[in-house]
Amino acid sequence: MSSLVSFVSAGPGDPELLTLKAVARLRAADVVLYDDLAAGAILDHARPGASLVAVGKRAGRPSARQEHVSRLLVDYAATAARVVRLKSGDAGIFGRLEEEIEALHRAGIRYEIIPGVTSACVAAATAGIPLTRRHTSRRVQFITGADVSGQLPADLNWVALADPDSTTVVYMGKRTFPALVAKLVEHGMSADTPALLAESLGHDDQRLARTTIAKLADQLAQGVGSATAVILFGALAGDGW
Amino acid sequence: MSSLVSFVSAGPGDPELLTLKAVARLRAADVVLYDDLAAGAILDHARPGASLVAVGKRAGRPSARQEHVSRLLVDYAATAARVVRLKSGDAGIFGRLEEEIEALHRAGIRYEIIPGVTSACVAAATAGIPLTRRHTSRRVQFITGADVSGQLPADLNWVALADPDSTTVVYMGKRTFPALVAKLVEHGMSADTPALLAESLGHDDQRLARTTIAKLADQLAQGVGSATAVILFGALAGDGW
Repeated sequence: MSSLVSFVSAGPGDPELLTLKAVARLRAADVVLYDDLAAGAILDHARPGASLVAVGKRAGRPSARQEHVSRLLVDYAATAARVVRLKSGDAGIFGRLEEEIEALHRAGIRYEIIPGVTSACVAAATAGIPLTRRHTSRRVQFITGADVSGQLPADLNWVALADPDSTTVVYMGKRTFPALVAKLVEHGMSADTPALLAESLGHDDQRLARTTIAKLADQLAQGVGSATAVILFGALAGDGW
Repeated sequence: MSSLVSFVSAGPGDPELLTLKAVARLRAADVVLYDDLAAGAILDHARPGASLVAVGKRAGRPSARQEHVSRLLVDYAATAARVVRLKSGDAGIFGRLEEEIEALHRAGIRYEIIPGVTSACVAAATAGIPLTRRHTSRRVQFITGADVSGQLPADLNWVALADPDSTTVVYMGKRTFPALVAKLVEHGMSADTPALLAESLGHDDQRLARTTIAKLADQLAQGVGSATAVILFGALAGDGW
């Protein structure tokens, strides 16, 4: 059997931010493997009778969980023609796609990637601002605030990140934000650089807060809560109309 | 009348990469203002009777064109309740959104931004690779290769851009790519850094080419053609499975 695995980007939460192509792949799927983040109304697009398999709650080390997901993906592709691997946001941005692709490649299984809307774009849109601005904010960059062990990656490019003329969006970065800001200030960034915290994007408890990097670091040092979040900082984060 | 202008992200070409929310806004619109890039099948979602207004072919200086678009937007919002301003890709990334928002703000007109799929995500997905990779490619950045006058912006952050551990995507950057690469190499980037040229994404003449930054610069110095393109470079651009 010639199986095809479709990595489908689900967007960051709001089911209305699915693309038409994502909906088509969900409708055609025999099996849908999904993480906790990409559940709910999005799965209603799957046809009745499709197998819906949650893979997000596996306990244990992240590497064990990832191996488990990759194994499931290969196993399902061996018995089903159309497998969807649903990923939140855009699958290619901090989605750990390479590990699942490698497993498919080793097993000789075809795959495709359906791109989607990444959280950074949703955070800015929700705040009513663009991510770039002519003359002043001509570079936009995304980083993750947590490495495999949950720590701030040690080898980040601080010169790139401490640039106020870039719009920087940090994914999964609430817990390590105080450490990040300490490094940014050490590399010359103003503590008053505007920042925007966007929590639970696309969900009922969505919350936006405009502040500065130093104030946000202070706040998050007191506690981060459980809501998923992206943090946006740079000159543009202070814009508002 | 309480008008609402929706900046709707159309994605980079493939009509299947529209979001459900974008389709809903198009269906509800009284007027749709669109650029040349975001035309064709996407406009089929507008209801019969909606006014479809092309604003992309205005001759003259870019600033004159932009003022013209902003004026049209305000004028249409004065007579129609639901105005869609269709933008290719994600409206917030190199979409010059701020100028149109400012015009609406001055006129006291409400707006919203519907985020979408940006070209960088489509280019990587089409090539079958992610934009980030654990351990090795933890930062992704987007720049535009052309300032207002069509030149390479002079004040780019070269340290940020010459970093092979970042995945960099250049929008509108074919013509200035030779000048960009000269600067990157001057700042220590290897001429052999992998690069990917993605042209006419989502259209029938879509074309992907894997190369290196130096070879691509040589090629583009000979001529750039008329196809829209994004250029992706960095360690990840060399990945393939």
